[in-house]
Amino acid sequence: VSKANAIQGTTEQVIARVNARLASFLSAQRAQADALTPRAGELVAALADLTMRGGKRLRSVAIYAGYRAVCPHEAVSGADGDADPTTDVAAAVELLQTYLLIQDDWMDDDEERRGGPSVHAALSRQYADPKLGASLAILAADLAMGFAFELLHAAKFPPHRAAEGRAAFAAMHFEVVCGQQLDLLDHPDVTLTHHLKTGSYTVRGPLKLGALLGDASPEQLLALERIGRPLGIAFQLRDDLLGTFGDTRATGKPAGHDLREGKNTALVAEARAMLGGEARDRLERVLGQRDASPAQLQEVTYSLESSGARARVEAQLTAQLEEAEQALSAAPLVPGGAALLRELLGRIALRDR
Amino acid sequence: VSKANAIQGTTEQVIARVNARLASFLSAQRAQADALTPRAGELVAALADLTMRGGKRLRSVAIYAGYRAVCPHEAVSGADGDADPTTDVAAAVELLQTYLLIQDDWMDDDEERRGGPSVHAALSRQYADPKLGASLAILAADLAMGFAFELLHAAKFPPHRAAEGRAAFAAMHFEVVCGQQLDLLDHPDVTLTHHLKTGSYTVRGPLKLGALLGDASPEQLLALERIGRPLGIAFQLRDDLLGTFGDTRATGKPAGHDLREGKNTALVAEARAMLGGEARDRLERVLGQRDASPAQLQEVTYSLESSGARARVEAQLTAQLEEAEQALSAAPLVPGGAALLRELLGRIALRDR
Repeated sequence: VSKANAIQGTTEQVIARVNARLASFLSAQRAQADALTPRAGELVAALADLTMRGGKRLRSVAIYAGYRAVCPHEAVSGADGDADPTTDVAAAVELLQTYLLIQDDWMDDDEERRGGPSVHAALSRQYADPKLGASLAILAADLAMGFAFELLHAAKFPPHRAAEGRAAFAAMHFEVVCGQQLDLLDHPDVTLTHHLKTGSYTVRGPLKLGALLGDASPEQLLALERIGRPLGIAFQLRDDLLGTFGDTRATGKPAGHDLREGKNTALVAEARAMLGGEARDRLERVLGQRDASPAQLQEVTYSLESSGARARVEAQLTAQLEEAEQALSAAPLVPGGAALLRELLGRIALRDR
Repeated sequence: VSKANAIQGTTEQVIARVNARLASFLSAQRAQADALTPRAGELVAALADLTMRGGKRLRSVAIYAGYRAVCPHEAVSGADGDADPTTDVAAAVELLQTYLLIQDDWMDDDEERRGGPSVHAALSRQYADPKLGASLAILAADLAMGFAFELLHAAKFPPHRAAEGRAAFAAMHFEVVCGQQLDLLDHPDVTLTHHLKTGSYTVRGPLKLGALLGDASPEQLLALERIGRPLGIAFQLRDDLLGTFGDTRATGKPAGHDLREGKNTALVAEARAMLGGEARDRLERVLGQRDASPAQLQEVTYSLESSGARARVEAQLTAQLEEAEQALSAAPLVPGGAALLRELLGRIALRDR
């Protein structure tokens, strides 16, 4: 219990440091923008609001865990304070997330995010002009992206790993954009889409960035890749389950959200393979139907359960988590850091939002 | 004459080096994307096509001129070859331009760019879905932006100037995004909009990046800022004149383009101050009217001339160029590089597209 408490304390301190860094960085940027023109300040405020409103900071925790897993000094103390070199990179990844969410919400016509209006929705309302609102939201995303790179440039990589660290960030960005493209095009390979769109910058990329900050050996980098790959897919499978079966108050998404959006989730892919006749037709009719009735959504949700699709996705999730767990057990990592990774694994397995 | 020839030869070699770097970089990225999935390769191809299709590479030349202006070795030879450290940064700025153009064309509903379809127009047609086409275009812009940062990371700044160089790139990006925001909002201060939207990454930013590559002194950086600021504004004033009075075959924009778009150009700002009664009403009626008739456009174009608005903008342009010229004459720069800057100034003054 006391070890679990220590890990929880560490996690909370990591999150507090990242939030403090984001708050001070964004307020400095806001001041600089205001000095150009108050209009620019508004744009910074829009992205700062979304950034600070949210999040589990799972990526920040993953970066810290990756760092601790390779850095052979007193771990799980959490008391790094100013000496924690992961904070800037974590803030960069959180702003990358802001940029991706702003674009994603516009592309998916999502009006809500993190318990408030999405950025394009808020700006469209403010200017009573959807195209102008969307354009300004894209500019807010641009600023978030530029800020992410500024924070990356400030990152305290060991000098001989700095180029590798920046390349890892760029590769992560490349993969997530390609994953988003596949998602928009309803690419049939759902696992590849997940791997690129979510896995890249949720688990794999952050673990690698953390490991590079800690000057990881090639064996350690490989081990973290072996842990991160299934863990990233597990994260997305959990997301798919939550998007259909999750508690809407916890997820912050309306009921039947993923079905209404017509998302090609793992659940839908399994259901398509298993449902036939009338039930399959009903699924296809409701999928992507923004004005589907609660009764229709309930019927389809039931069929995702009764067909065994839900059970199969849950089995996939368990298999991915077991693969990650095995990779973790075999990995040449520092014990304290490995404990943080195991805790991260549990958070991903059990999260309800 | 032989000095002018030497300068022209240098400029051509700079452009050839940047084009070669862009071609090889983008083809490597294309191969990497294809390895993920051919769909991703298509996205890279879309932005590569726009990048290679165009451009005067004015920004690349400005970077080189900034570098040569502070770097005290055999200048205006152009024979740097592989030793030219400006090529990576120039390619980065050209890809920043690609990213901005893709977004700009979507925001302005421009179907054409550089003598071909704009990226969102091409993708909207390919998928017969304007929203999907726009979303994919934004992703293509995202990739271009990520590539720009990758090239920036490869840049050969003197080690003790690298952080400054990356900060200059980030500042340039910040300003241009804020400028685009002001443009979308029809901000009344046209000069500020120009300064931020165009001046930042067309002249000021490139000169600074080049100067940092050449390890400029504080006095030289200040001098280049004094040259770049009026030169950037002159560039945009020339753009405004070309957008209304230019030869449509040379500019690649349809006649009356800026008027149809309702752009708040310097010409329009002057005309608003000078026209009254019927003529002013006619201007406001036609401005932003996408289906304005050729006769209406001609009438308004004539009033921009007869009111004296054109003459006043031309006078502003001359004044900005003179300010740049004076700053150049007084600047503590290397003669060969100063000659390149003078040539750049002439290109901006006289360009017809």
